[in-house]
Amino acid sequence: MIERIAIVGTGLLGVSAGLALRAAGFKGSISGWNRSVEGAQTALAMGALDSVATDPIAMARASQVVLLCTPVHAILDWMEQLAGVVGPEHLLTDVGSTKVQITAAADRMYNRPGRAGFLPGHPMAGKERGGAALGDATLYRGAVWLFTDDPAWKRSPQSAELVKEWRTWVVAMGAKTIDLDAARHDELVAWVSHLPQLVATALSSLLEDEVGDAPELKDVGGRGLREMTRLGASPYSMWRDIAHTNADAIQSALLALEQRLTHIRENLRTPELRDEFEKANKFRKE
Amino acid sequence: MIERIAIVGTGLLGVSAGLALRAAGFKGSISGWNRSVEGAQTALAMGALDSVATDPIAMARASQVVLLCTPVHAILDWMEQLAGVVGPEHLLTDVGSTKVQITAAADRMYNRPGRAGFLPGHPMAGKERGGAALGDATLYRGAVWLFTDDPAWKRSPQSAELVKEWRTWVVAMGAKTIDLDAARHDELVAWVSHLPQLVATALSSLLEDEVGDAPELKDVGGRGLREMTRLGASPYSMWRDIAHTNADAIQSALLALEQRLTHIRENLRTPELRDEFEKANKFRKE
Repeated sequence: MIERIAIVGTGLLGVSAGLALRAAGFKGSISGWNRSVEGAQTALAMGALDSVATDPIAMARASQVVLLCTPVHAILDWMEQLAGVVGPEHLLTDVGSTKVQITAAADRMYNRPGRAGFLPGHPMAGKERGGAALGDATLYRGAVWLFTDDPAWKRSPQSAELVKEWRTWVVAMGAKTIDLDAARHDELVAWVSHLPQLVATALSSLLEDEVGDAPELKDVGGRGLREMTRLGASPYSMWRDIAHTNADAIQSALLALEQRLTHIRENLRTPELRDEFEKANKFRKE
Repeated sequence: MIERIAIVGTGLLGVSAGLALRAAGFKGSISGWNRSVEGAQTALAMGALDSVATDPIAMARASQVVLLCTPVHAILDWMEQLAGVVGPEHLLTDVGSTKVQITAAADRMYNRPGRAGFLPGHPMAGKERGGAALGDATLYRGAVWLFTDDPAWKRSPQSAELVKEWRTWVVAMGAKTIDLDAARHDELVAWVSHLPQLVATALSSLLEDEVGDAPELKDVGGRGLREMTRLGASPYSMWRDIAHTNADAIQSALLALEQRLTHIRENLRTPELRDEFEKANKFRKE
C-alpha cells in the first residue's frame, strides 16, 4: 500500500499532483524537491507537500513512489541518477511530454527482477504558464492520463503492486487513463498537442512582428485571436525538450500543415476552399 | 431621432443587434426580413424584432436606419437594390467583415446630397456557429465595432444626424468604436481575424484527415486542441465572401505564416526556436 510519495520538480504538474492526491484522500506522506527552493516552499505552503527535501537521492530512497515532474531531459537525467540507488521495492513514474526516449530508458535501466519499476506516464493537462503557484487540485479532473507501459516488462512483485495502486490514484485524481505504445504516443501527441502549440507560437510570433506595436489593435481580434494565441505564452524551457525528443514526428506534422495552408492560399477563390471548411466542420462536429 | 430600424438578415449578428438595442433601451420599432422565413420568425419570437416584413424594399423605405446583416456579397447586392429606393432621409449601415468593396460602393452610390447615407461598419464579434437562435443581447459588449467612414463624404443633414445617433446606439450596445481607413481595415483584419480563422480551418481539416477516425483521441489534445480548432466550425457561406473580397491581404498573411512554420520546422533543435517562443511570449504579455 502506497504510504510515501516523493515528487521531484514542484512546478505546475507536481504541485497539482500533490494537491489532487490530498483531495482524493491520500493520507500518506508527500515529500518534494525542486531545483529552486522557492518553488518547493511554495508547494509546501499550498499544502501539496508535507516536507521539503534537501537531498533528493535520500528522499527517493525513503519513498515508495517517486513522481518525476520536470521537463523531459531532466526526467532522463533523474532516471540515470536514481537507477543505482532505488530497488525492487520502488516505483518511479513521470509526467513527461514525450515517451519514446523515456520508455527506452525505462526498458534499459528499470523493470527487471531486482530493479525498481518505472511506469511511463503523461497527463494531458497543463496551463499556458507554469510554476508552483498555479498548482490546482482539479487540474487532472476530466483529463486523459496516458501510459506507455510495456507488457513484456518483468517487474518485481512489489513494484508491480505499486503500478496497480498508482493507476488507481491517477483515476482518483479525476483522470481517464489510456494505454498505448510509446511510438504511437509520440506520433499522436505530435498531431494533437505539439502541432497546435507550435502553430500558436508561430502565429503569435508573426503577429508580434506585424501588429505588436499597436497593442490596442489586439482587441480587434477578439475571442478568436485570444484563443488562437493563448498557447503563445508557453515557456521555451519545457518545449525545447519536447522539440528535441520528438523532432521527426513534429517535422512531419508541421510540413503537412504548411502544405495545407499553401493549398488554402492558392484556392481562396475556388470551390476547394469549401472542401477545407467542410472537412474542418466535420472535425468539430460533436 | 431614430424611431424605425430595419434589419436585413436575421442571423447571429442581426438578432444580437435587435436584442442589444432593446437591452440598451431603444423604444422605437424594429422590423426584420430574412431570406428564410424561419430565421425571421425565430428572431421575432426571441424579441429581436417587432415585426417580420415580407417586402424588404418597402421595409427599408419605411425605416430610418437599415442595418444590413448578411455576408459581404449579399450586402453589396442590397446596396445596389436599395440605392434607388431610399433617399436623403435614410441611413444604411452594415456589419460586413471586409470593407474596401463596401466602402467603395458606398462612395459610388450613397453619401452625397440628395442620396441616402451609408456608414460602413464591422463589429468584431461572433460565434463559431451562426443562426438566429444563437442571438445574444450581450454579443457586442466589450467588442470593438470598426467604422470605415470617409470624412470627404457630403451627406444630407438628415443622414448625417442619423450617423451620429447610430454611433451612440453602438456604444449603448456595449461596443467600443474605432475609426480607420477601409484599406487599413482589410489589411488589419487579414492579420488578426482572417489568418487565425484560416489557420484553425487548416488545422481542423488536417486533423480530420489524420486522427478524425479516432474520435476518442481528440480528448487527448485537451483544452489547447479544443481552442485551436474551435473556429474550425465556422461556416463556409460567410467565409467564402471574406476570402473573395480580401484575397490579396489574406494571401500575404498566409504566406508569411507558412514561412514562419517552415523556419520553426527547420530549427526544432537550434536556438532559433527560443527566439520564436520569446517573441510569442511577448505578444501574449499583458
